[in-house]
Amino acid sequence: MYSTNIEFFGYFAAILTTAAFLPQLIKTLKTKKADDVSLITLIMFICGVGSWIIYGYAISSFPILIANIITLMLNTFILISKIYYARKY
Amino acid sequence: MYSTNIEFFGYFAAILTTAAFLPQLIKTLKTKKADDVSLITLIMFICGVGSWIIYGYAISSFPILIANIITLMLNTFILISKIYYARKY
Repeated sequence: MYSTNIEFFGYFAAILTTAAFLPQLIKTLKTKKADDVSLITLIMFICGVGSWIIYGYAISSFPILIANIITLMLNTFILISKIYYARKY
Repeated sequence: MYSTNIEFFGYFAAILTTAAFLPQLIKTLKTKKADDVSLITLIMFICGVGSWIIYGYAISSFPILIANIITLMLNTFILISKIYYARKY
């Protein structure tokens, strides 16, 4: 029971830190700008998440792999949107 | 040697996804605004990172614990700065 609760926190944490970037993407697409979002933060974070994917694959951890693939996709969309709107407007 | 390389990716990933938020904090403090940064993203991410800290403590993982404590601090500072500047300006 105790270890089940621990696993719950792990999955809860993974879902939250992954899904958290969806509101940022929606906000960026709605307002058509992300000037206040740091470009360096996005690039560093995407590189870091990419490394988590390699790590997850290497240690055969499905939760690390899937959570970071979704996080990578969301943050790549945010990065592309930021650059696109900065050029367009 | 192979497992050493895997561990390297894990630590590299942890350092990058933690340090990534420092440029966002610096940018917010410099420009005195973070209107484009999603409030919901920040709150969800902080809750998620808090859960990672509980998980890291429960499974006695020092790397998960330390990386997430720093990430929590940086994102809390970003959240406070965002709210502070939104009220002030």
